[in-house]
Amino acid sequence: MNDMSSASDNPESLVADLAQKGRVAQRKLARASDAEKSAALNAAAAAIRAAEPAILAANAKDVAAGEANGLSGAMLDRLKLDADRLAGIASAIDNVASLPDPVGEEIDRSTAPAGMTLVRRRIPIGLIGIIYESRPNVTADAAALCLRSGNAALLRGGSEAVHSNRALHAAFAEGVASAGLPAEAIQLLPTQDREAVGAMLKAAGLIDMIVPRGGKGLVARVQADARVPVLAHLDGICHTYVHAAADPAMAEAIALNAKMRRTGICGAMETLLIDAAFPATQTVVAALLNAGCALRGNVRACAVDSRITPASDEDWDTEYLEATLSVAIVDGLDAAMDHIAAHSSGHTDAIISGDAAAAERFLAEVDSAIVMHNASSQFADGGEFGLGAEIGIATGRLHARGPVALEGLTTYKWQVLGQGQARA
Amino acid sequence: MNDMSSASDNPESLVADLAQKGRVAQRKLARASDAEKSAALNAAAAAIRAAEPAILAANAKDVAAGEANGLSGAMLDRLKLDADRLAGIASAIDNVASLPDPVGEEIDRSTAPAGMTLVRRRIPIGLIGIIYESRPNVTADAAALCLRSGNAALLRGGSEAVHSNRALHAAFAEGVASAGLPAEAIQLLPTQDREAVGAMLKAAGLIDMIVPRGGKGLVARVQADARVPVLAHLDGICHTYVHAAADPAMAEAIALNAKMRRTGICGAMETLLIDAAFPATQTVVAALLNAGCALRGNVRACAVDSRITPASDEDWDTEYLEATLSVAIVDGLDAAMDHIAAHSSGHTDAIISGDAAAAERFLAEVDSAIVMHNASSQFADGGEFGLGAEIGIATGRLHARGPVALEGLTTYKWQVLGQGQARA
Repeated sequence: MNDMSSASDNPESLVADLAQKGRVAQRKLARASDAEKSAALNAAAAAIRAAEPAILAANAKDVAAGEANGLSGAMLDRLKLDADRLAGIASAIDNVASLPDPVGEEIDRSTAPAGMTLVRRRIPIGLIGIIYESRPNVTADAAALCLRSGNAALLRGGSEAVHSNRALHAAFAEGVASAGLPAEAIQLLPTQDREAVGAMLKAAGLIDMIVPRGGKGLVARVQADARVPVLAHLDGICHTYVHAAADPAMAEAIALNAKMRRTGICGAMETLLIDAAFPATQTVVAALLNAGCALRGNVRACAVDSRITPASDEDWDTEYLEATLSVAIVDGLDAAMDHIAAHSSGHTDAIISGDAAAAERFLAEVDSAIVMHNASSQFADGGEFGLGAEIGIATGRLHARGPVALEGLTTYKWQVLGQGQARA
Repeated sequence: MNDMSSASDNPESLVADLAQKGRVAQRKLARASDAEKSAALNAAAAAIRAAEPAILAANAKDVAAGEANGLSGAMLDRLKLDADRLAGIASAIDNVASLPDPVGEEIDRSTAPAGMTLVRRRIPIGLIGIIYESRPNVTADAAALCLRSGNAALLRGGSEAVHSNRALHAAFAEGVASAGLPAEAIQLLPTQDREAVGAMLKAAGLIDMIVPRGGKGLVARVQADARVPVLAHLDGICHTYVHAAADPAMAEAIALNAKMRRTGICGAMETLLIDAAFPATQTVVAALLNAGCALRGNVRACAVDSRITPASDEDWDTEYLEATLSVAIVDGLDAAMDHIAAHSSGHTDAIISGDAAAAERFLAEVDSAIVMHNASSQFADGGEFGLGAEIGIATGRLHARGPVALEGLTTYKWQVLGQGQARA
C-alpha cells in the first residue's frame, strides 16, 4: 500500500499508473472470445449477488453519511440500495452478457484497385474513463458495457457513494477474475481526491474516451477541461412541434407524455411549438395545465389560456427537468425549424403531423442527434431503441450520436489481405 | 473592409465571425442535392481552369518570395504550380464531383420495441477547419471534399503560398456561387496571423473538426493545442514483419517496395522485423542495401551483413522518411507483435507470411489503423483503397481511422418514424 499512498499524493502519477495497468489488461481482453466475456459478466453478476450483505452494509454507511450531511431526498433515493435494487443491478449485468459481442464484426468489405481484399472490422476503443455521481448502479452498468465490448474501464464515482462503489467494484472484479479475465480491466479510482478527476480529464494517450454520467455541472466541467475525447450530452432542450396537420388527439397524447411521463429525464420535452394553423391548440394547452404543468408562453401563447405566464428570453434555452414547459405559437414549419435551430441542444426534437412532406422536411433538416415523427421524445433511450443497454446519449458531432450502446464503444481497423502486392 | 481589418486585430472575433458565416452557409449546403453539389464542383473546376493566368501569376509571386527567403528545393517544388499541375488540380475536383454523395445514405434501419421505425442516416459534420502548409493544391482538394459531403470549410494555408491560395480560393468560390450554392461555405482565412490558427484550434462549438495537413511539427501543435476534435496522424512508424513462413521472393519485393518506392510518405516502412527462422534474411537485407538503403540493426541484425550499423534506442521510434531503415531479427510472431505494440505509431503494420494462422493472429491482434497481410505498407492511401480521394489518414481511436474520405466527413442522425407512440 506504500505505492498507492505515495501515488495518490500525486494524482497524475496515480492516474497514469492505473491507466497503464488498464491498458495492459485491455490487450488481453481484446483477444477474449464472446463466450469468455459473457462468462465473466455472468460471474460478476453472481459475485454481486453473493456479496449482497457486504454491499448493502457498505451502502448503509453511505446513506447514513448522506443523511448526516443533509443530502436531498432525491439524492438519497439515487444512492440507496436494497435487495431488489441490487438484484436489478445483477440482472442488468446478465442482460449485457446476453447482448451480441460487437468485437470482430465486419463493417464492410471491398476490393482495392490493386486486388487486395479490404475488410473494416470492429475493435474495442481501449481504456474508457467513466466519471459519475451518486448512483452506485453506474459502477456495474458501465463496467459491464465496457467489458462486453472489450474495453478496459477506469471508474470514478461520487464521494457520496464511495463505500457502495468499492463494495460493488470488488465483487465485480472478483467475478471477472474468477472467470479467468484480468480483474485490472475494470478499475475503480482508489481516491476521492478531486484533482484525480482533473488528471483523468488530461490523460490524453492513456485514456481513450471519457463518459461523464451525471448532472449538467459535472458534464460541463468534463467538457470544459477534458483533453481526452468526451462522449456526452450537456442538456436535453427537446422540442415538440405540433404542425397544422397534426391529429389533435395524437398531439395531445404525445405532448402530455413527452412532458409529464417523467419530467426529470433528458428526453423530456422542454418547449412545445404549436402551429398557428393547428385547430386544437386550446385543448392541448388545457390538457397540460390540467395535468399540473406550468406553462410559460410567447405573447400569442399567453392569449390562448389565462393560466399561461409570459416566458422570458432565457426560458427558450432552459432545461426545466420539472413540470414547467415553454410554449410558443409559430407560423409554419420554417418558423418552427428556425426556433429549433436557435434553441435546441441537439438532443431530440419531434414533429407531430399527418402531412408526410412536412414530416420529411423536418426529419431531414432539423440537425439533432434524434429527430422524431409522431412519437414522444421520452423514447430517446438505448433500451427503447432496442440497443439492449446504454452508456449514455451523445450530442456531439463525431463518432457516435444519440443513444450509445456497445457499437459506440468500438472503433474499427482496416485489414488488408494481399497476395504479394507491391505499389506501382 | 473596415470590419475585417478591425476583426483581424482580434483573431478570436475574426474566427468566430467567419465560423458563423460558414455555419449559416452550411445549413443551406446540407439541403443541397447530389446534382447541385456535383454541378458546383464542376463549376469550381471550370473557374480554376478559366483563372489559370491569374493563379499562375499569383503562384509566381509566392515562388519568387520563397526563393528570396531561401526555401528548400523540396518546399519550392511543393509550392510551385504550372499549367499541368493546375490542370491536375481542376480534374481532381471533377473527380470528387463524380464520387457518390454520402449525405442522406441510410446506415441501418430497425424497429423499436414500441413499434417506431428507426433509421440512421448520414449527415454532414458541419464546419471543418483545414490547417495546411505550403501545398496550394490542398486549398482545392480539401474544399472539394468538404463541399461534396455537405460540409462548410474554413481554410488556413501556409504563408509561403498565400497568393496562390487566395487566387485558387477566389476561383473556387466563384465557381460555387455561379452554380447557386453559397460561396461562404468555402472560406479562406484572410490573415496569415499565427494567432488566428490558435483561435481556430480553440473554436469549440464553432468549428466541428480540424484536419491538419502537413509535417509533424504542424500536426503536433494542432494536437497539443486543439479544443476542437482533430482528425490526423502524427507520424507513420510502419513495420513489416517477415514471418518464418514468408515466401522469400515476396518478402524481398514487398520490403523493397515498402521502403524504397517513395521514402517520404507516411506509409513508408520504417522498421523491418525479420523472424530468426526466416531462411533468406541475407538476401532481403542485401537487396535493401544494394538499393541504396542505410540499415540500422539490433545486434543480431548487424551480424547478418557488415554494412548494417548498430541501431540506437531512438531508432526504433524514428520516422526516417528517407532511405534509412531499422532492422531487427526477432524470435517469432509474439516477439514481433510485442515490438510493434511498443514502437508502432498505429498507422500501418504488415506481416509477410504463407501461414494463414499466423497472418490471422497478426491481423486480429496488432492494434493499428491499418494491418496488412502480404502487401506493401505503401498502399496506405485513400486512392489505393478505392475511396476515390482522401482528406487524410487518421490514427486516433474515435470516429474514423486509416484513410479518411467522404464517409469520414459525415456523421449521422437517428430518424424515428412513429404512428403516435407515447412511452409507457
